[in-house]
Amino acid sequence: MSACQFESLEKSLESHLPEAELAEVKRILFGKETKKLDLPARAVEAASERDFELKGYRFDAAQEQLRPPRNIRVGLIQHRIVLPTDAPILDQVTMGKKETGTMPFAFCTREKEPWTEFAESAEEGNTTRFCQELARKYNMVVVSPILEREDLHSTLWNTAVVISNSGNVLGKSRKNHIPRIGDFNESTYYMEGNTGHTVFQTQFGKIAVNICYGRHHPLNWFMYSMNGAEIIFNPSATVGALSEPMWPIEARNAAIANHCFTCAINRVGTEHFKSEFTSGDGKKAHHDFGHFYGSSYVAAPDGSRTPGLSRTRDGLIVVEMDLNLNRQISDKWSFKMTGRYAEYAEELTKVVEHDFKPKIVKE
Amino acid sequence: MSACQFESLEKSLESHLPEAELAEVKRILFGKETKKLDLPARAVEAASERDFELKGYRFDAAQEQLRPPRNIRVGLIQHRIVLPTDAPILDQVTMGKKETGTMPFAFCTREKEPWTEFAESAEEGNTTRFCQELARKYNMVVVSPILEREDLHSTLWNTAVVISNSGNVLGKSRKNHIPRIGDFNESTYYMEGNTGHTVFQTQFGKIAVNICYGRHHPLNWFMYSMNGAEIIFNPSATVGALSEPMWPIEARNAAIANHCFTCAINRVGTEHFKSEFTSGDGKKAHHDFGHFYGSSYVAAPDGSRTPGLSRTRDGLIVVEMDLNLNRQISDKWSFKMTGRYAEYAEELTKVVEHDFKPKIVKE
Repeated sequence: MSACQFESLEKSLESHLPEAELAEVKRILFGKETKKLDLPARAVEAASERDFELKGYRFDAAQEQLRPPRNIRVGLIQHRIVLPTDAPILDQVTMGKKETGTMPFAFCTREKEPWTEFAESAEEGNTTRFCQELARKYNMVVVSPILEREDLHSTLWNTAVVISNSGNVLGKSRKNHIPRIGDFNESTYYMEGNTGHTVFQTQFGKIAVNICYGRHHPLNWFMYSMNGAEIIFNPSATVGALSEPMWPIEARNAAIANHCFTCAINRVGTEHFKSEFTSGDGKKAHHDFGHFYGSSYVAAPDGSRTPGLSRTRDGLIVVEMDLNLNRQISDKWSFKMTGRYAEYAEELTKVVEHDFKPKIVKE
Repeated sequence: MSACQFESLEKSLESHLPEAELAEVKRILFGKETKKLDLPARAVEAASERDFELKGYRFDAAQEQLRPPRNIRVGLIQHRIVLPTDAPILDQVTMGKKETGTMPFAFCTREKEPWTEFAESAEEGNTTRFCQELARKYNMVVVSPILEREDLHSTLWNTAVVISNSGNVLGKSRKNHIPRIGDFNESTYYMEGNTGHTVFQTQFGKIAVNICYGRHHPLNWFMYSMNGAEIIFNPSATVGALSEPMWPIEARNAAIANHCFTCAINRVGTEHFKSEFTSGDGKKAHHDFGHFYGSSYVAAPDGSRTPGLSRTRDGLIVVEMDLNLNRQISDKWSFKMTGRYAEYAEELTKVVEHDFKPKIVKE
């Protein structure tokens, strides 16, 4: 069975494990079971007609005496590119929520043209205008990952635009950590972001965006959380052979460690490029760099998570959550209270000096 | 099926999944397969006679031109308490490698007597002497978790003693983060450690000990790594209902994020106490606080991990690893190169001030 045929871990377990064992396996793998959400029949039909997966789950919190529940809904979209990579660029510009959602993940080619033509303004680009309409129409906040061109200095950035449900651009978050690994040598195109760890206060809650490779950096999640994020989105584009066993670990660990919700979103499909390219691994030149494995999911602060969307199909996962859960779990586990951050600030300040002496005991 | 009957996730998957699917499920769950280690027939017989689980695995690294392989072996022991909790204390003092290995995990009782009688000197206590003999005899480094009494100030600490293969005490590492949660209200007995993030240079490699609740704190793992740790041990005592879904996540995330090996070790069994106690959860008083679920494992920097020991039985897992893998993975993924730690040191220094202004954008 090849890696781009296997549909999902969850489906495999559900097909083969006896009921009592399945419950234990799911508890250990996914934590407290997330309830399934009843979705409108119209939506289910649309998914069937247009051939995308549609799943819905709900995370509950305890009822409190003073605070009413803060129930909100989040939707994560995973999708393949709509047209071949050599179709005219104007035709390719559609929308998505995965990393640089409007374009093929072409950074593996190291070609500047034509890919930099996908870059657009965060404030006034086509993708932003398109999302603004949707935001107003459906009264929703949109997180829209794009390849950004900052015209004034002609620089590119890997950026997520956050659009309020009013339709206004609330701001943008640029990718903080840039990989130099295999086909992800993205510093050919853009460098580390300068927007720090901005959190966006929306009508529904405080959100932040940790783009792709930033998920490998626990400090990145942590600092968004220290600035108050209640939900951290991680729009990603990553392939099976490289990162798949890490995928269920990192965003979920961040939800646990920071008492918040995290949303891991990945591309689907295999993207073929006209020009062949090498990958710095001694292997022959080729036209694609592997299967984007989807598997988008939401993780909660109590260690539980939703099942993932499939590894192979376009999909939408709708998750309802009571944001009161964050503070409830924080009061229970108290990682921030017991975090000793002042000591770490001092230690880290020393660590980054070039003449840092590590604390190593020898015999 | 009750939580203390279910033997292990791995066994359940292997019993029911078809071969091709099992391979994909294991790849997604555990990463690159760890080879099984051939163990001496004598050892296998001993395990069978004495009724403990014995497993062996190996993590490979690539052959390099300039550095020879750095193959070492690590053994993790998980075990239940040997005698009932109300047996005479002198009889109960045996050895182990889980958190405060010589004693029942009695902190749930909040009784000072007789439990503080288990406390002993890190440098000259019975447990240390016993481990020193073993260290010399078998040419091995021993990490020995104890309840430490510092006689001079009559204070208690939750401590791991590190004993060199020469038999000398190399030093000690005190628990950095102390829980105040449910039955783990340990600050009744001891407070946050003052040994920082010490790393021990042994003949086999540089090791560190992140005790129990410290595994929930990504900064704790991180700082041991920044001081040079190649293997970080996490001796723990934790129960199913509380933490089991987090268990496969946290130590493994730390191995990935810090380009090092991590070893997660837990107790097994259910411990009954003569006096009843409450758990701060509104429920009735009771005599035990749940099932310690074992499941000890080793995680590697490439995102792979060994299967776990069982949830129910005493066990020893022997893992051979080539420590060259750490630098190889660091060169590949480059999390430390791309970590932007100087920026985080500045940010964290601001965050811990009482008048910190979070970076929140509003409409």
